[in-house]
Amino acid sequence: MSAKAEREPVIVLVRPQLGENIGKAARAMLNFGLTEMRLVTPRDGWPNPSAGPAAAGADVVLEQARVFGTLAEAVADCANVYATTVRKRGVAKPVVTPEQAAREIHAAPGRSAYVFGPERSGLETEDVALARAILTVPINAEFGSLNLAQAVILCAYEWSKTMGLEQPTIEELLPPAPQDELEGLIAHFEALLDAKNYFWPEPRAASNRRTLRNLLTKPGWNSLEVRTFRGVLSTLEKEPRNR
Amino acid sequence: MSAKAEREPVIVLVRPQLGENIGKAARAMLNFGLTEMRLVTPRDGWPNPSAGPAAAGADVVLEQARVFGTLAEAVADCANVYATTVRKRGVAKPVVTPEQAAREIHAAPGRSAYVFGPERSGLETEDVALARAILTVPINAEFGSLNLAQAVILCAYEWSKTMGLEQPTIEELLPPAPQDELEGLIAHFEALLDAKNYFWPEPRAASNRRTLRNLLTKPGWNSLEVRTFRGVLSTLEKEPRNR
Repeated sequence: MSAKAEREPVIVLVRPQLGENIGKAARAMLNFGLTEMRLVTPRDGWPNPSAGPAAAGADVVLEQARVFGTLAEAVADCANVYATTVRKRGVAKPVVTPEQAAREIHAAPGRSAYVFGPERSGLETEDVALARAILTVPINAEFGSLNLAQAVILCAYEWSKTMGLEQPTIEELLPPAPQDELEGLIAHFEALLDAKNYFWPEPRAASNRRTLRNLLTKPGWNSLEVRTFRGVLSTLEKEPRNR
Repeated sequence: MSAKAEREPVIVLVRPQLGENIGKAARAMLNFGLTEMRLVTPRDGWPNPSAGPAAAGADVVLEQARVFGTLAEAVADCANVYATTVRKRGVAKPVVTPEQAAREIHAAPGRSAYVFGPERSGLETEDVALARAILTVPINAEFGSLNLAQAVILCAYEWSKTMGLEQPTIEELLPPAPQDELEGLIAHFEALLDAKNYFWPEPRAASNRRTLRNLLTKPGWNSLEVRTFRGVLSTLEKEPRNR
């Protein structure tokens, strides 16, 4: 993978409904030089014959689009995940504009992803929990009606603007660990806590899991740190060694 | 006319073809607080029954839209006219980006207008001649395919940024917990790990403690999160509850 491709953020459409909107999103992306689209369980399957005509020539984006079963899998290799949403959420995460996100993505090491929800409903709380930050387009408070392709084009446009600028030198900071390493940590932690009935009684389990996930997503730990933490968890699982 | 309305730029669509695209442009405008649309000889007359549904609720823009016979009349009261085009023209005028245009419009006295051409052909040389400057969206040189509503939305979006639209607050982000709460968490974690001989053998202890401290300092967890994490640690200390 070339250095350029590594830096290009991916566009993830979660449970998109209409093939036409997938095509429009592809067109929006390619206008500003983005080519990597990922789809999480598109409603009408994939490929979708309605996507092509709406892409208006951005076929290369659709042809290379990859389909995933879950958002976690779709962003497994991404260190910086932005969940786009216009709604209030009970999640305490940093909220950024498309402009700020673009600047961060250019400055940050590791791959980045812009995540968009289904046309009508937007992202679920569980989807947002996977992200390090929430991306919101500042919009007319009395008329907020951005469609999927419009949200995509604003993000892609802002990203493309920073591409012309001089690249700021990236510090010797390690990027946040890819999502799959973080998932490994979360699964490990959950298993440990489950053995102690942390997720009991059942009605609280989902919310407890989400809380734990948010807690472990916030740090942006790098691979080394994730590995250290897993070592800590392994220690806690063990019987005390004899000195 | 209020001071705000006087400063709000107008969106001029020259010879638009489809009512649907006029509706989409209205929707794009209102998302970013623009309400004044002017139409120059729309192909299918005005009003157009296809515009309403495509406006997705931005009816106020369509209802107030005014129709003109020529572009010169449509921008007669405007001091700063920007002709949007993606193509090079044989006209020696300044070429600006949507961002630069927005900045100029905010700084300039007098009314401003963004002028957009027909869907297929774009603005004629005669139209461009009326403008003080050409507005071009920097775009993928190998795939430039912005439709009318997309061009409108990028201009409106850039203009709104300088207006300081309210960003919907998600939730007041809590500050990181005070240091003593963090110390409490670290001490708790260390006690737990010490019981499992994590800090043994002795020569490694200091460096292990430092690593753990760095790991737990990085997140910037707030008081609530620190308390949750201490609950997690307490759970790990306990024998499993009976279900």
